[in-house]
Amino acid sequence: MKLTLSDASAIVDAALRAGSSLGKALSVAVVDAGGFLLVVTRADGARPLTPNIAISKAYSAAVMERPTKMLKPWAESNPGFFASLSAHAAQPIVATEGGVTVKRDDEILGGLGISGGTGDEDQQICDEVLGALGYQLEFPAWAGVRK
Amino acid sequence: MKLTLSDASAIVDAALRAGSSLGKALSVAVVDAGGFLLVVTRADGARPLTPNIAISKAYSAAVMERPTKMLKPWAESNPGFFASLSAHAAQPIVATEGGVTVKRDDEILGGLGISGGTGDEDQQICDEVLGALGYQLEFPAWAGVRK
Amino acid sequence: MKLTLSDASAIVDAALRAGSSLGKALSVAVVDAGGFLLVVTRADGARPLTPNIAISKAYSAAVMERPTKMLKPWAESNPGFFASLSAHAAQPIVATEGGVTVKRDDEILGGLGISGGTGDEDQQICDEVLGALGYQLEFPAWAGVRK
Amino acid sequence: MKLTLSDASAIVDAALRAGSSLGKALSVAVVDAGGFLLVVTRADGARPLTPNIAISKAYSAAVMERPTKMLKPWAESNPGFFASLSAHAAQPIVATEGGVTVKRDDEILGGLGISGGTGDEDQQICDEVLGALGYQLEFPAWAGVRK
Repeated sequence: MKLTLSDASAIVDAALRAGSSLGKALSVAVVDAGGFLLVVTRADGARPLTPNIAISKAYSAAVMERPTKMLKPWAESNPGFFASLSAHAAQPIVATEGGVTVKRDDEILGGLGISGGTGDEDQQICDEVLGALGYQLEFPAWAGVRK
Repeated sequence: MKLTLSDASAIVDAALRAGSSLGKALSVAVVDAGGFLLVVTRADGARPLTPNIAISKAYSAAVMERPTKMLKPWAESNPGFFASLSAHAAQPIVATEGGVTVKRDDEILGGLGISGGTGDEDQQICDEVLGALGYQLEFPAWAGVRK
Repeated sequence: MKLTLSDASAIVDAALRAGSSLGKALSVAVVDAGGFLLVVTRADGARPLTPNIAISKAYSAAVMERPTKMLKPWAESNPGFFASLSAHAAQPIVATEGGVTVKRDDEILGGLGISGGTGDEDQQICDEVLGALGYQLEFPAWAGVRK
Repeated sequence: MKLTLSDASAIVDAALRAGSSLGKALSVAVVDAGGFLLVVTRADGARPLTPNIAISKAYSAAVMERPTKMLKPWAESNPGFFASLSAHAAQPIVATEGGVTVKRDDEILGGLGISGGTGDEDQQICDEVLGALGYQLEFPAWAGVRK
């Protein structure tokens, strides 16, 4: 199973509508399971780098196989090691709100990244949009966190 | 005057339709005058890096202020110097078919990049789509070519 | 509306005079709305990298659409994510005093960066110079800060 | 002996006037003997990356201690090796017209780089401006060319 352009566009359109209803100009990106771009859209008024930030979040969520906010304990516990991940990747690996893995029937299909709202808004829109479209929102806790 | 999301989407949609009518799965990117992303779309079946190639073409056409194919004589006459341009830029500067400046009333508004067809197909779709939407397609010859 | 060379030179000259009256050798940079260089000047006695620091500040203020000091809470709350921004940009994105967006009639025209004084001096000169030349100095609070 | 801001500004102003009299919108950069920026100016109408190209030329002419066009035989005879120089440097090392070392009394004071005209125009303005201001224009042939 692969995300089609139609699937990706449905996610992006729903996210932009949600942003618009909050009065926020968002950039939204959807990537495939390998982290490669499917759709990127910048709403009128969103800042110039927001599409790239959205791409980083979508890429990280796809390739790390869990939402980017779940990477925060790792990034905070060992920031130098975490930063080194990006040296191996085609996009920066980020640990923040607003990136969620696109997953169905326990298969990783890609990633969604949103930038332009507060971190909480970006995250909430990811969760609402993916939930409404029937994607899974349960992810295993990260094993790599040091306690 | 700035390209709106509606302007950029109209360009991308027309290019995807043109690719579809040729039986080609394209990736299409539109950037603003500063080279920042507005819309990127990968059609079903287009290869993983085609969106990034389209972005490079769109960026180069915006920032160099002329179609990317017009940069080929320069790139061929002094490839090392030409390659050095990319060190200063947010995306690689490319010299090839399929990137055209988006221009109206002699103002640079952005760039369109297409990847996925042959070079000639990518170029023809750029020209047809921008022409049909009323953008300018005349650009000054490149001053920097060595004879 | 675009910043002309005359506009940019007026900003740089005023900033250098302000530095001189404080007894500080400054470097001053002005970029356009896309972050591309317009004028960079290093006063006699300013350190070798100060022009580049000024360029980073000017670029960041233009592209992030607010003064660089407004980015400090974000950079401090999530330094790894903030550092990842620079991977997408033509210059490092910095969070510090001394970079202010050049804005008029609510339109982003570019950025001013100053380096060579204390952070507070760099900032004060930015504000005084842009204010005296009739640019706007009000910017929306940053939505991305985590509380 | 060091180039002062006044020296660098005199070079830049003369170069911009020469470009204007040719009807060309130029970017002009002057760096010090270490290749660090002194003055960069982009004339109205010059393309966005021309200041950076001018900086590369000025840097290369200062650090390689001869005009950038004298590096062309080397770059052409061993392009891979030549490209590797840039890995060690703060700016790309370029082999092309339009970068000339600023030299007086056999002392290297810095570099001048011009971009925006044809290669020949950029070069001619470098030579005329530096000659008129009393700088030396004789440089030893490059020893590293392979025959």
